[in-house]
Amino acid sequence: MPCRLVVMRHGERIDDLFPDWIRKSTSSGSYQAFDLNMRFFEPLVLPKLKRPFKYYEGDTIISEMGFVLAEMVGRGLLVNKSIPDIIYTSPALRCVQTAHSALKAMSKENEIKIRIEPALFEFTDLHPGQPKFATPEEFFEANFNIDIDYVPITTMDDIWKRNETVEMYSKRVQNLLQKLAKTHEWSKRSDGALILVVGHASTVDLAIGAFREPPRTLLARELINQGAKFPYCCTAIIDRTDDGRWLYNENALPPITYMNFSSKINRDFAMRERLT
Amino acid sequence: MPCRLVVMRHGERIDDLFPDWIRKSTSSGSYQAFDLNMRFFEPLVLPKLKRPFKYYEGDTIISEMGFVLAEMVGRGLLVNKSIPDIIYTSPALRCVQTAHSALKAMSKENEIKIRIEPALFEFTDLHPGQPKFATPEEFFEANFNIDIDYVPITTMDDIWKRNETVEMYSKRVQNLLQKLAKTHEWSKRSDGALILVVGHASTVDLAIGAFREPPRTLLARELINQGAKFPYCCTAIIDRTDDGRWLYNENALPPITYMNFSSKINRDFAMRERLT
Repeated sequence: MPCRLVVMRHGERIDDLFPDWIRKSTSSGSYQAFDLNMRFFEPLVLPKLKRPFKYYEGDTIISEMGFVLAEMVGRGLLVNKSIPDIIYTSPALRCVQTAHSALKAMSKENEIKIRIEPALFEFTDLHPGQPKFATPEEFFEANFNIDIDYVPITTMDDIWKRNETVEMYSKRVQNLLQKLAKTHEWSKRSDGALILVVGHASTVDLAIGAFREPPRTLLARELINQGAKFPYCCTAIIDRTDDGRWLYNENALPPITYMNFSSKINRDFAMRERLT
Repeated sequence: MPCRLVVMRHGERIDDLFPDWIRKSTSSGSYQAFDLNMRFFEPLVLPKLKRPFKYYEGDTIISEMGFVLAEMVGRGLLVNKSIPDIIYTSPALRCVQTAHSALKAMSKENEIKIRIEPALFEFTDLHPGQPKFATPEEFFEANFNIDIDYVPITTMDDIWKRNETVEMYSKRVQNLLQKLAKTHEWSKRSDGALILVVGHASTVDLAIGAFREPPRTLLARELINQGAKFPYCCTAIIDRTDDGRWLYNENALPPITYMNFSSKINRDFAMRERLT
């Protein structure tokens, strides 16, 4: 049985910063960053996919800061002796990128496998249509260390057909997490496997709720402003106790603290006139 | 004559995030990070200095995010074909660290020299006493690429003796910048040298003011909240025009935009009870 679940939200979304990022960065026909918080030295993020730009509309990339925070969490897990044995991630590109960056910070990107699990995708009703995700094989071709033999418990098409309610969504995620908490995973550790789950803001919320006593789900009204409550790369650690219960371990990982700021100069102040 | 001055504020201060960071991180006798936004894998920042911890009190280090933003600016200068020929920096450790990180992002940390110029240190009245800075030789020993032959225009001791007013401080910085704008620096470029200046929030403000028409200085009341107006790693680019005037070039460098957030989970929300 696993001994620890680490449940993490993906890194900062580019489309959250720049809703118009695709048009703005591809108007020349090829990708060009227009902000220092965007990756500069890549033709695009998934060069081997040769994906049409419009596929990124429902499936954004993460920002430079997103990579950096994911790496910080990876380093935090490393110093905390919490290197995962396996990673489960939502099929959204932002989640796969986040998982990969956390692995890179541990220098484990060629060692630890990533399993793409559609059941981890966020509440479908937040999306106008079903996003065009890359397949596990396409991710693998693009050098992500995907476990292509993994058989997910459901498919995106099936999830989409259900027209799910928030209650159904809660169950989908919490059932998966409960299942992962019981699955046998191979591990070098004697105390049990360590599973890293990379998902969305609500994934972290639902993970904490699933292992509360009594457990709780998620209500529709609680989706409002979830992104602010479970910020990018926030991480919940849930540990199995000696008597087999699971407990949210609030202080397992050091936090990431930094100032709220943008690097923009206050123009009006800088350009003020001086009467001489 | 130089063709461009790039004037940059240092990266995020650790003591701004954690006023008590020295006691908290060194209580075990050796340095230990307690937040993921602190460097983890270094005994301390200047291992070769074997500095007493208390010297850091007036001379803080920068955070992980500070390094990252400085690297982003370095990458921005690189893609912008604005690689500096020489760097002038305030003697504060946070500024030397920032300069070094910007160089690292350009892979120029063994090539471009850093000159430590006390005239770039911030307004002395902001400090309870004269900080114990590392000497250029000590920085050099600690693997910063310092130009140890550089003779600064003044010394910290001299600056401290003057009991300067804000007006004197403004003059000190602006005179230096005016001097740099006229100095001959060697450059591969045909249009003139490119000088990077790393200083404090007020350094960036004074640089913009020095090259305004008419020029302006800095008033005491304008020091309030300068850190918010000129955020960490903010960068002003000042260009020489064909007729020899200098102009603040507001859009020379892409900005760095990201969300204001901390990675802390909203505890009350996550731990809420559900009545069943």
